[in-house]
Amino acid sequence: MQLGLIGLGKMGGNMAARLRDKGHDVVGFDFNPDVRDVDSIAELVQRLEAPRVVWLMVPAGAPTAATIEELAGLLAPGDLIIEGGNSHYVDDRRRADELMDKGVHYVDAGVSGGVWGRENGYGIMVGGDADDVARAKPVFEALTPDTGGGYVHAGGVGAGHFVKMVHNGIEYGMMQAFAEGYELMAAADIVDDVPGTFESWREGTVVRSWLLDLLANALEEDPELEQLRGYAQDSGEGRWTVQAAVDHAVPAPAITAALFARFASRQEDSPAMKVIAALRNQFGGHAVTRTVDDPSQTLRS
Amino acid sequence: MQLGLIGLGKMGGNMAARLRDKGHDVVGFDFNPDVRDVDSIAELVQRLEAPRVVWLMVPAGAPTAATIEELAGLLAPGDLIIEGGNSHYVDDRRRADELMDKGVHYVDAGVSGGVWGRENGYGIMVGGDADDVARAKPVFEALTPDTGGGYVHAGGVGAGHFVKMVHNGIEYGMMQAFAEGYELMAAADIVDDVPGTFESWREGTVVRSWLLDLLANALEEDPELEQLRGYAQDSGEGRWTVQAAVDHAVPAPAITAALFARFASRQEDSPAMKVIAALRNQFGGHAVTRTVDDPSQTLRS
Amino acid sequence: MQLGLIGLGKMGGNMAARLRDKGHDVVGFDFNPDVRDVDSIAELVQRLEAPRVVWLMVPAGAPTAATIEELAGLLAPGDLIIEGGNSHYVDDRRRADELMDKGVHYVDAGVSGGVWGRENGYGIMVGGDADDVARAKPVFEALTPDTGGGYVHAGGVGAGHFVKMVHNGIEYGMMQAFAEGYELMAAADIVDDVPGTFESWREGTVVRSWLLDLLANALEEDPELEQLRGYAQDSGEGRWTVQAAVDHAVPAPAITAALFARFASRQEDSPAMKVIAALRNQFGGHAVTRTVDDPSQTLRS
Amino acid sequence: MQLGLIGLGKMGGNMAARLRDKGHDVVGFDFNPDVRDVDSIAELVQRLEAPRVVWLMVPAGAPTAATIEELAGLLAPGDLIIEGGNSHYVDDRRRADELMDKGVHYVDAGVSGGVWGRENGYGIMVGGDADDVARAKPVFEALTPDTGGGYVHAGGVGAGHFVKMVHNGIEYGMMQAFAEGYELMAAADIVDDVPGTFESWREGTVVRSWLLDLLANALEEDPELEQLRGYAQDSGEGRWTVQAAVDHAVPAPAITAALFARFASRQEDSPAMKVIAALRNQFGGHAVTRTVDDPSQTLRS
Repeated sequence: MQLGLIGLGKMGGNMAARLRDKGHDVVGFDFNPDVRDVDSIAELVQRLEAPRVVWLMVPAGAPTAATIEELAGLLAPGDLIIEGGNSHYVDDRRRADELMDKGVHYVDAGVSGGVWGRENGYGIMVGGDADDVARAKPVFEALTPDTGGGYVHAGGVGAGHFVKMVHNGIEYGMMQAFAEGYELMAAADIVDDVPGTFESWREGTVVRSWLLDLLANALEEDPELEQLRGYAQDSGEGRWTVQAAVDHAVPAPAITAALFARFASRQEDSPAMKVIAALRNQFGGHAVTRTVDDPSQTLRS
Repeated sequence: MQLGLIGLGKMGGNMAARLRDKGHDVVGFDFNPDVRDVDSIAELVQRLEAPRVVWLMVPAGAPTAATIEELAGLLAPGDLIIEGGNSHYVDDRRRADELMDKGVHYVDAGVSGGVWGRENGYGIMVGGDADDVARAKPVFEALTPDTGGGYVHAGGVGAGHFVKMVHNGIEYGMMQAFAEGYELMAAADIVDDVPGTFESWREGTVVRSWLLDLLANALEEDPELEQLRGYAQDSGEGRWTVQAAVDHAVPAPAITAALFARFASRQEDSPAMKVIAALRNQFGGHAVTRTVDDPSQTLRS
Repeated sequence: MQLGLIGLGKMGGNMAARLRDKGHDVVGFDFNPDVRDVDSIAELVQRLEAPRVVWLMVPAGAPTAATIEELAGLLAPGDLIIEGGNSHYVDDRRRADELMDKGVHYVDAGVSGGVWGRENGYGIMVGGDADDVARAKPVFEALTPDTGGGYVHAGGVGAGHFVKMVHNGIEYGMMQAFAEGYELMAAADIVDDVPGTFESWREGTVVRSWLLDLLANALEEDPELEQLRGYAQDSGEGRWTVQAAVDHAVPAPAITAALFARFASRQEDSPAMKVIAALRNQFGGHAVTRTVDDPSQTLRS
Repeated sequence: MQLGLIGLGKMGGNMAARLRDKGHDVVGFDFNPDVRDVDSIAELVQRLEAPRVVWLMVPAGAPTAATIEELAGLLAPGDLIIEGGNSHYVDDRRRADELMDKGVHYVDAGVSGGVWGRENGYGIMVGGDADDVARAKPVFEALTPDTGGGYVHAGGVGAGHFVKMVHNGIEYGMMQAFAEGYELMAAADIVDDVPGTFESWREGTVVRSWLLDLLANALEEDPELEQLRGYAQDSGEGRWTVQAAVDHAVPAPAITAALFARFASRQEDSPAMKVIAALRNQFGGHAVTRTVDDPSQTLRS
């Protein structure tokens, strides 16, 4: 089928290639003139036959909002936007309502798979009305693995991004579990071969997983991770997961621990720990750092 | 090679079968007369040619301790005990020292793989002196997967059980991450197809893993987990992981969250939360449950 | 000075009484005809001399929003609204902007103190422009303790409710710390006198605090808290604190733990723990609940 | 009454002074010749009339163990040792058993109060047999505040140190709660006066406490805590509390969070976070740091 695709970066570009391999007619736009098929969004809309399907693969936040606003002014009733970026599910629902006032349909799609997706297929999680999702089904089928897996229509508008958000939250928790296990083994004198231990777990164990494979690879390249700093960004989706958990009164201590560990990793110094230090100083009286709660430290005998 | 194997339950019995398939001569003892080759540990020791190798696969704690004590009185200098159960690494080190006084060698082996190990091989994590480990290498090779993976000599005595313990700690964290993600999706009206979402993640995503496969299976059988109570035992190894983390000053918040969630799952009522309720009652004055921190609740207007 | 006060429930009624004791002229409105001075908000506005000061003490959310909307249609440029309920700081800022379009000023005030405030004075945390805050200063002085303490102008509009929110978040963490300590002592056979222990801590220790006083009282009345269920509501402010922490990339593990413990306390059964149970079942193969990670449980020997 | 006191450092010295003020006859020993009454423990034992009472106030661990061993060789049946340091409750119980073989009695006493104890009295938490505790009652009464509070006989041997340990665990949680609240207010642009906010909370609020008083003092001296690094030691008692919670299957997430935050504060770089960084690198393929879970970051459009 024919598809407009806005955003031809690493993700969008690979997706366009996979779709064309599967016989779809992709009309692509990007700010980079070297990779695009048309020179503007207006031209893209013109080139597509109505009812149009336009897939967005642009950065979350303002770029996605601006692109949708521009599209909203160009598309016709019956056209369909598929938002494949990392929008927040609440924004999806608001946008879908606004677009529907103009007769433009909206489906959200969470996409997983990274650089391997071009060849192996992407995980696609979709939210939207059944009719809209059905219309785009050939595209989803082309993008997902040839095995027939890797696809879910999770619910109404927003559900695709919601479950992709939760996927990422789970990913945070799993990564943190491996990270804590690594640190404990690295800290214990008793363990001589930490990389070999992770490598051995890749077969026959409960923790075998793609993340374990990646970790074993990383430790093969750099057995003590000396080339790296313990510094981790967080994507918005980890934060959203915790906030959604709070909104829904769902305890999520492991995922939240993972998020907070990332926050802490980016601090030069911890204001909270300054308070702990200040209080410990205060225990001992003026200009004294001894603590009341540990008399042993205050004895010379 | 020839091997004594004490404990022929589900794990030990399958291991004996796999070892025999690979051509090893296993002399097995169990309290169950239907499955054993010899009628006592004394007979087992007698049947083995010195220097002997005896693998223990008995319940952790008192049974393992009693078996080792009995063996210690029967074995000769140069013999080797392989403790394949779930002993604590500190106990391994103490025992190895005690046995070495009598010239008996000791290797600890953490074993992973469950009911599938018989066919697919077990993950084996070994701790001990290089010479002792080398002596038992043929057994380790027979037990681990035919691919050559699934094996690590992690360090000196205790290291095998230490890394197996950490493996289980990581497992706790990963399970908890999936559990939190499930609960959040189940709680959110927006998601209509939770089982389908987990199923879809099995391909092309970051969280793909054996645990995810198991969860997808479980949800296929019982989509809302109605047959289950939210009640989870903890094996000793989760506790030991947290305690080892504390001993080594390693922050392990996600693994600890998983452990605490299991503790809480087994409580009919939470004494801690009774304190919270009591304090909230006290806020409002005698016999009043209104809270000071939420004036809105104390207003009729 | 003259002050309109909307909401004469337990908090508002006591505040009106304290203000009158200090010589202020309070015109009060409430839905309850028995306690009000005027029969409508319109009448209240009419009774006040311009420029008016109207303090709101109504439930957070819709009631506060509706009251402010009604007031906005009645007040004149130069009048001042003081929102003393538990509004979210983001709502304060939005509202202040909207009201300023009509020339109506807005100050937010977080109020702490409960039923004792009438006599001892309230803790008041204020957000707003310096001029607006200065105008209401006599009211703040009358409401706060006679010692001169208990008052802060924390920042611009929203800051009062922001710091009140953080106050409540800290309160959550402190309560949780006492609750965990209680449960540990109650669980340990070694401690015979838990209530006496808390009572003893009220003097000479690091943890002495008003919350400890309340807990000692509660345990005096009901030494094993048998009259209570371990069930705790959460006010919105605990959730907001965690969400603000996430928004500001501030690790807040203890406060979050307290919030999640309250969530868990209200669940009949934990969906997350059902997943743990399901996974443990899956470990052992079809229809078997034995776990792979604890071979000891699978042995009969 | 007559009392031997070993350890005349800041804590022990002040305690000796308070006891003498109250009319007790204290014979003190310390390694420091300037402060001691006798030149050896042997001399101290000789100077005391049987049955003797000897209070230990020496550093926990090896120094306490060595002192008790020396005393055990010198004391007579019927004598009583009061261990006032920070021993672990398990060590108390073992020691008490060993000493009882020689007829020497043992009481453990957790002491709180620091430099203010000299004047205001100490919080004393006692574990031991009723008869032994009764014998030392005059000493406890002299050391605790004149109000009659600050004292508990919490249970058998070990109970005093157990509840003191829990006290310190609670203290960790309370401090962490204040620390998190501070960091959130410091991070939020909306709050202009963080020190003033803490100061204001000292009256009329739920969080008023001695720790809040100390924090307000600290912020008065150094409003942005610029003189401090966010680095905090942990005494053994925080670790013991978490380990006791794990031993007793008690969820203690807030106290544990506080402990882990201290661990993290002492790390130059986090090995766990290196793993997170390594995994994020691996997502993006060879030599690429882009992440699969945030397609927005991989787009140029």
